[in-house]
Amino acid sequence: MIHPNMATMLCFLTTDAAVPAGTLDGLLRRAAGRSFNRVSVDGDTSTNDMAIVMANGASGAPPVGESGEAREAFARALEEVCVSLAREIARDGEGATRLVTVEVSGAADEEAAEKLARCVAASSLVKTACFGADANWGRILCAMGYAGAEFDPASAGVRFRSAAGEVAVCAGGSPLPFCEDEAKKVLSQDEIEILITAGDGEGAASAWGCDMTYDYVRINGDYRS
Amino acid sequence: MIHPNMATMLCFLTTDAAVPAGTLDGLLRRAAGRSFNRVSVDGDTSTNDMAIVMANGASGAPPVGESGEAREAFARALEEVCVSLAREIARDGEGATRLVTVEVSGAADEEAAEKLARCVAASSLVKTACFGADANWGRILCAMGYAGAEFDPASAGVRFRSAAGEVAVCAGGSPLPFCEDEAKKVLSQDEIEILITAGDGEGAASAWGCDMTYDYVRINGDYRS
Repeated sequence: MIHPNMATMLCFLTTDAAVPAGTLDGLLRRAAGRSFNRVSVDGDTSTNDMAIVMANGASGAPPVGESGEAREAFARALEEVCVSLAREIARDGEGATRLVTVEVSGAADEEAAEKLARCVAASSLVKTACFGADANWGRILCAMGYAGAEFDPASAGVRFRSAAGEVAVCAGGSPLPFCEDEAKKVLSQDEIEILITAGDGEGAASAWGCDMTYDYVRINGDYRS
Repeated sequence: MIHPNMATMLCFLTTDAAVPAGTLDGLLRRAAGRSFNRVSVDGDTSTNDMAIVMANGASGAPPVGESGEAREAFARALEEVCVSLAREIARDGEGATRLVTVEVSGAADEEAAEKLARCVAASSLVKTACFGADANWGRILCAMGYAGAEFDPASAGVRFRSAAGEVAVCAGGSPLPFCEDEAKKVLSQDEIEILITAGDGEGAASAWGCDMTYDYVRINGDYRS
């Protein structure tokens, strides 16, 4: 039961920075939108979740304002912490053996990129392919196709990346020749990235998920036994 | 890759009735909407599907008109055939061991009932619970909660039914005492029904799916091996 909003979680963040409540609220919403709300383990939205942030000003630093460098630095730090936690939620998905990061660039805007990234991350077929270390990019384009965001399949590209290397499997909507063994090696790592180009727009977004394994079925099929 | 619209399928229907093209088109759309478009095996919309119906009038019966008894009879027959085929698609889902029918009644209207039924049928958590023959009605209410259709959880009811009997597990939004062994027996059949009351409205709809099993993961994880 881990899927936006917001994934089954209770998130408590604290900071010694001085940040007015209104500013903090806005920054947390943005950070949560780019982190916790981009996680999917199984597509089942949680019935209980929350994220709060508390700022006590104990650092003695000047208050973070509505604009300026301090605000940007604080916003970046807050988002970094949230993304880091969101990744751990995905990595810890029921039965997961791999953390899967889906990065979309070139979409019309961030909203479109987010829709595409989330749909790919949540697809059962993509998730089982990740389990099997199968470079099945057709399933990725399929998931993009039902994401509800406009994109031109004829300009779509897909690459896989991990600590074991990088392999491009599709460009301009067409298959690229690639070495299956090399792709299998790239996709057999604990952390893998699916890098998608959706066109030539400015929109980019990431989403996080995990593979779907026998243990996902076992854990959720035997839940009360 | 079996999920509306319309599930991966090529559907050819023929009839000896005489039905004008426009009438036939409308009836097929309605029947498909109540059958093929209410099937979900894995939430991944297909990239290829179609349904056509051809009527040659060879029966010699008078043409089916825009209204009247003949039209209603033909519409019912067409829907019955489509529902029968849709059920077989769900039963034949990758790795499936059970056909799961979700029937929602008491929703505000048919559209709301359909949303609720489809969401429950497509939920990975409900599907794994069906595999485990686990009377986990909390997951059913959870899926209804994110279906995007209004309903009052406090008046929701859930029953499970199969050839082995029927067991009510929730009424008025509250748990009912029930025998776990009896529920397990009911849910261990090849065909099971999840019967949901969403309120006191007139809207009713069915959706069809299957359980999610180890074999679903195996088949889709090893797809190209």
